[in-house]
Amino acid sequence: MSLIVQKFGGSSVANAERVFNVARIVTDTYKKGNRVVVVVSAQGDTTDDLIEKANEINPDASKREKDMLLAAGEQISIALLAMAIERLGCPVVSLLGWQAGFQTTSAYTSARIKSVRTDRIEKELDKNNIVVVAGFQGINRYEDVTTLGRGGSDTSAVAIAAAMHADLCQIFTDVQGVYTADPRKIPNAKLLKTISYDEMLELATLGAQVLNNRSVEMAKKYNIELEVLSSFTNTPGTIVKEAKKMEKLLISGVAKDTDIARVSVIGVPDEPGLAFKMFSRLAAKNINIDIILQSIGRDGTKDISFTVAKSSAKEAEEVMNEYVSNVGGKKVLVDEKVAKVSIVGAGMESHAGVATKMFEALYDAHINIRMISTSEIKVSVLIDEEFADAAVKAIHAKFFDED
Amino acid sequence: MSLIVQKFGGSSVANAERVFNVARIVTDTYKKGNRVVVVVSAQGDTTDDLIEKANEINPDASKREKDMLLAAGEQISIALLAMAIERLGCPVVSLLGWQAGFQTTSAYTSARIKSVRTDRIEKELDKNNIVVVAGFQGINRYEDVTTLGRGGSDTSAVAIAAAMHADLCQIFTDVQGVYTADPRKIPNAKLLKTISYDEMLELATLGAQVLNNRSVEMAKKYNIELEVLSSFTNTPGTIVKEAKKMEKLLISGVAKDTDIARVSVIGVPDEPGLAFKMFSRLAAKNINIDIILQSIGRDGTKDISFTVAKSSAKEAEEVMNEYVSNVGGKKVLVDEKVAKVSIVGAGMESHAGVATKMFEALYDAHINIRMISTSEIKVSVLIDEEFADAAVKAIHAKFFDED
Repeated sequence: MSLIVQKFGGSSVANAERVFNVARIVTDTYKKGNRVVVVVSAQGDTTDDLIEKANEINPDASKREKDMLLAAGEQISIALLAMAIERLGCPVVSLLGWQAGFQTTSAYTSARIKSVRTDRIEKELDKNNIVVVAGFQGINRYEDVTTLGRGGSDTSAVAIAAAMHADLCQIFTDVQGVYTADPRKIPNAKLLKTISYDEMLELATLGAQVLNNRSVEMAKKYNIELEVLSSFTNTPGTIVKEAKKMEKLLISGVAKDTDIARVSVIGVPDEPGLAFKMFSRLAAKNINIDIILQSIGRDGTKDISFTVAKSSAKEAEEVMNEYVSNVGGKKVLVDEKVAKVSIVGAGMESHAGVATKMFEALYDAHINIRMISTSEIKVSVLIDEEFADAAVKAIHAKFFDED
Repeated sequence: MSLIVQKFGGSSVANAERVFNVARIVTDTYKKGNRVVVVVSAQGDTTDDLIEKANEINPDASKREKDMLLAAGEQISIALLAMAIERLGCPVVSLLGWQAGFQTTSAYTSARIKSVRTDRIEKELDKNNIVVVAGFQGINRYEDVTTLGRGGSDTSAVAIAAAMHADLCQIFTDVQGVYTADPRKIPNAKLLKTISYDEMLELATLGAQVLNNRSVEMAKKYNIELEVLSSFTNTPGTIVKEAKKMEKLLISGVAKDTDIARVSVIGVPDEPGLAFKMFSRLAAKNINIDIILQSIGRDGTKDISFTVAKSSAKEAEEVMNEYVSNVGGKKVLVDEKVAKVSIVGAGMESHAGVATKMFEALYDAHINIRMISTSEIKVSVLIDEEFADAAVKAIHAKFFDED
């Protein structure tokens, strides 16, 4: 008898018909003799409706009350899914985050899971119940309701799988699995049978938002095998697991991220601690930096460029202008019309020439590279935003069509 | 510094504008230096929407899952009200039933409050917070969410007031208070300044559904002074309190109940234990009996009539037909076209002729009385349903217009 955790997102339970679709997947798994824990998000529109209601009353409401409000969304979806499972004739019980033992930090709207006390879930499984758990939510040490922020339900599912040593954690989405590129843009993108945690992590950061990064990190840490698959088609998806277990693909995917802006600080006096002083100011404002590029010094000054999310561009610019006024420097430039295109692959660790092949593809397509950043399993380039799709297409063709 | 509990029903928080109206009442009370606990029901439409969603999926869903679903309704309304109070600049915290310490019996959809552990509420009041509590809900000893059934939020409010020895418990509704008759039907119905618990109880049973009976019973038991008043007008309502404290009105109100049916069992053999045998069968089916009338025996048989809610009429008829088959009797008659009209007043205990005055009013209006039932503070008559409004009008005029 296997223990399987299944997670369904908001679009998978958006209406009565889809709730029954999920109930059928769950009961089929249960009838095969498995113990099943199901983690569900709020129904498609519910969260938006609740946010709209809140904004109408108080756009600056406290995060505590926002969490109280939003957590009602999963409460509705777990009850409805449990009712559908009841109707299909299987024993079931629904549990809220606190009932399922989710203890989190106190950071409302972006809490982190501290522990999952699984006694109640285990008790219900021992009674042969299917257990439906509200994703995305828990309680902090004040017994106040918290939510986990974006992609929180994925993390809830993996946390339960980890705490209970589940045999498999299936993440059902509206796509078939993980592809070598966005299949809506690249028609011959290929569905990956397997991918390593690290590759999945790099892809998620790069905007291929199939799985939330926190959930992949947790799965890696506890070595939980994930399967990403569609709740609408009955076909195998992509298995995310330890790299050692699988054949290394040269590269596993091409991804783009257009939610990005480049900030350049020109003519900064070249002194020790320059990077620290600059980036600690950004950290103090909670501005996340992605690629950093520091020019070789000239005339005792340097140029430093970095990328941030578009939504942080304005604030980053202000912080840097302040830096230039206080510490020195010529000027601050911001370019929001950029995109990052990356290739990811555990195989490139041991294969030379992968980056070169990518640059060649871009050269052939007449696309200019403005910044480059590399890691063991990733190569990213910054290019003009207007060429982003063309770049993905050219790179994908270079690596996959020649196979 | 007084402790005031204020309860607002679903129509009082139906939309953003009304939520702010409630927030203003609450913060005004708080700014006068009071400690304020607010109990709120789900927003007007939320409960109906949730029930519709449930019925679409499984009309025979378990009561446990129904409670899980419905409890999301108050979760939404407490968060929204707290957000509105925040916007008006007062410190506030919202609490779910379980967080506010509501321990209930396990009977899903109609649980009863066993205790209210008020530590958390007290802690928040000590921090100078306004405390907004989800009415209608609690948890049972399995830590599962329960709801209190119809009128449950009134009971939640009185239970908190009782547990915390509140100075006043205000029940805000969409009417100005308790009237001598339904003001929509009787234009010169008078708003009562005070009414006793017992009179309020009788009136509630009689269909003047201003306050839920369980809440009045609890208020009487713990001697909590209630005020029934409108959340839409800034005027004093009706105080419900111990009879001794107030001048006794001759009668305090006239009410009608048309959700009633009369069942008559004709020609039952007159034996000891007749009533017990008959009514224990009804009790076994959870059929509530209101007025009972037993004829004086004749030819060794008796006729027994009683009234039940219209929804129970069919089942009561079946039970009685079974009784007649097994124990004896001639036949069972059911009349659904009846209404009960009652006068209530603590004053009638010490004043003779109150019932006579009521009968006179009906006689003057040519309305036939079919059954009569009396208690210390109530006289009820059963009449044809079509004359119900006319009867209320005639009786009200007799007692109040002559003043």
